[in-house]
Amino acid sequence: MISFKDAYQKVLDHCQDYGDEQIPLSQATGRILAEDIVADRDFPPFNRATKDGIAINYKAIEKGQTTFKIEGVVAAGMPSCSLSDTANCLEIMTGAVLPENADTVIMYEHVIIENGWATLIKPPSKGQDIHPQGSDQKKGNVVLRKFCTITPAEIGVLAAVGKATLKVRALPSTAIVSTGNELVDISETPLPHQIRKSNIHTLFSALGQEGIEPTPLHLADDKESIRKVLRKSLQEHKVILLSGGVSKGKYDFIPEILNELQVEKIFHGVKQRPGKPFWFGVQKETGTVVFSFPGNPVSTFVNYTTYFKDWLKQSLGIPLSEIKVALKEEVVIKGELTLLLRAKLHLLDGKLQASLVKENGSGDLNSLVPTDGFIVVAPNKEVYEIGEYVVFIPTRRLL
Amino acid sequence: MISFKDAYQKVLDHCQDYGDEQIPLSQATGRILAEDIVADRDFPPFNRATKDGIAINYKAIEKGQTTFKIEGVVAAGMPSCSLSDTANCLEIMTGAVLPENADTVIMYEHVIIENGWATLIKPPSKGQDIHPQGSDQKKGNVVLRKFCTITPAEIGVLAAVGKATLKVRALPSTAIVSTGNELVDISETPLPHQIRKSNIHTLFSALGQEGIEPTPLHLADDKESIRKVLRKSLQEHKVILLSGGVSKGKYDFIPEILNELQVEKIFHGVKQRPGKPFWFGVQKETGTVVFSFPGNPVSTFVNYTTYFKDWLKQSLGIPLSEIKVALKEEVVIKGELTLLLRAKLHLLDGKLQASLVKENGSGDLNSLVPTDGFIVVAPNKEVYEIGEYVVFIPTRRLL
Repeated sequence: MISFKDAYQKVLDHCQDYGDEQIPLSQATGRILAEDIVADRDFPPFNRATKDGIAINYKAIEKGQTTFKIEGVVAAGMPSCSLSDTANCLEIMTGAVLPENADTVIMYEHVIIENGWATLIKPPSKGQDIHPQGSDQKKGNVVLRKFCTITPAEIGVLAAVGKATLKVRALPSTAIVSTGNELVDISETPLPHQIRKSNIHTLFSALGQEGIEPTPLHLADDKESIRKVLRKSLQEHKVILLSGGVSKGKYDFIPEILNELQVEKIFHGVKQRPGKPFWFGVQKETGTVVFSFPGNPVSTFVNYTTYFKDWLKQSLGIPLSEIKVALKEEVVIKGELTLLLRAKLHLLDGKLQASLVKENGSGDLNSLVPTDGFIVVAPNKEVYEIGEYVVFIPTRRLL
Repeated sequence: MISFKDAYQKVLDHCQDYGDEQIPLSQATGRILAEDIVADRDFPPFNRATKDGIAINYKAIEKGQTTFKIEGVVAAGMPSCSLSDTANCLEIMTGAVLPENADTVIMYEHVIIENGWATLIKPPSKGQDIHPQGSDQKKGNVVLRKFCTITPAEIGVLAAVGKATLKVRALPSTAIVSTGNELVDISETPLPHQIRKSNIHTLFSALGQEGIEPTPLHLADDKESIRKVLRKSLQEHKVILLSGGVSKGKYDFIPEILNELQVEKIFHGVKQRPGKPFWFGVQKETGTVVFSFPGNPVSTFVNYTTYFKDWLKQSLGIPLSEIKVALKEEVVIKGELTLLLRAKLHLLDGKLQASLVKENGSGDLNSLVPTDGFIVVAPNKEVYEIGEYVVFIPTRRLL
């Protein structure tokens, strides 16, 4: 068995590159950008009125003028025009191009308009209420960097520069595999000794949040069918997540069969709780990565969250970050395992604090409902005090 | 014009109830549960072995016995059985039903197995390595509460209790409408006085994150077509989000036409920056709610994030919460408007701090890229000091 820290590092050492793909903008939210995006024009592309009112040449103000003949109206979407006389004004609408020889906009609230003349109520400052061409970004500037996560804000920028399609990081084709003869489908009524499948649904949901639609499979505890299904999955998928069948039981055939199928074991067993019998390997020939999680629901969940998610991030090029929060209660460590403890997060006066969730071991699926994430406490000391900072791995969106 | 606080309250006062709908579990992630979920059996449903090893009756240990004849193997998924003699043992696998007259499991690591006999290396504790029936949840207990957000953890619980389909809160049919003659499609090359549509793409992306797939529409600045499209949208949709056309301009026909179409104005104009000319109304007859945002990209974005998101949450039954963070720099307020300032969030030693993002007004779309959210500062004082707590409205996932 290896330490938690070593296991985590070994998983990251086996990140893969799945390349890039071209997708339409409407499907890009949540994806990772795979190209630098450059402004194709200045932002804004012209001197743009930011108020509805009149456009004037400030020289007229300097000469003491307060009343302006209205030459016409400039609406948003009209081509650039000029004042025929810089002593006059043009009515101008928000978003319109500032007339070439105007330099100041005065909003309607500061003007009285009567019989084709505008009279100022309030003296303007030169250049006011104009969003000058190129003042946000110059043409050719990088406006979005490769490897950023695309959220609604980035979508707006991508639209503005005309990226109807764009290059994003490709996601690996993924299979999720449950194992165990005790498992029945969720639409079935289990016999007294059976339980319904849950891990595969949890994984389906979690991968969906990463933009991956996995192929769900189930294996009975029978060598021949395990061999057949895994061989096929290794050919068809780049990532396989299994739950169950990696412990010391008589029917835990997974490690043996993965070995037969040329999947090289990187490690089996981590000094952690829950999730200790985690098996991790790579098929060198194809590059297919196999995360074989112990089948208890909390074991699968903690290993997915801790190892797989960061592995995926790093494979896609997203920088990893560590969140630390303060303990709201003392934590006492017994034994030699790193503990991944279910925790609830509290935000009080801008401070993040974690309290422990009452739980009943790694089979206690329900304890994940009040859980916001896992705190990581290593056995390098016996007591973690109140207020001490610990690593926090979120399992749901908190902010 | 009304205050920011009043506007926010008025928007919440017009929450709607769109009822519930039945959907398959595979589509439930991110949705809001609309029924209490009850355990249909005990969790776990039987006394369940949590280790691979042997099952014994502890009375044998009390009698000093250390070697046990193996009667057979109990695998996960096998019906309940018994020891034929309580001086014997059964090999048992993780997830299997504990034999009726056994009460203790001893893992393989603490046993030597030879010629059909198991010899203890380490004395067990009575009842060890068993996950007792009903110890997580009793049959009939509520395991998930109505109005919770469904994440992968809840999906696991829903699967375990057999909810192949479930009742979630229904989402409103929504139209998003951009207006303005200066706007062209993203696949077009704009003329010098034109810009590409961006708000409609931002809103499409943002609503998608809430599970809503809106209908995108565009209006030219022409009364007759605005009237026609809005009349149809009011019939077909429960929510309409518009951007642009609500300011003081000559072609800002939206408020007038909404009024004609019996959409009652709740307010028009809020003492805030950006996003001041926000128009909000409800068509009483149909209950259709109209959010008409000013068209500058940051104005639309800030109003969507601040008003619409909480309005939607409350309409779906999700409790609202306020996030407060400490200021990393001093903020000086001038004027009488509540400011919604673009901010970057920093997490240091478990503390959340906000610093201001350099920006160039409400047209500066690019400034939303380094922005994590908006801080709200009201003009009830002139200076907000470093370290002072302010409300923070996130615009992207931070934890």
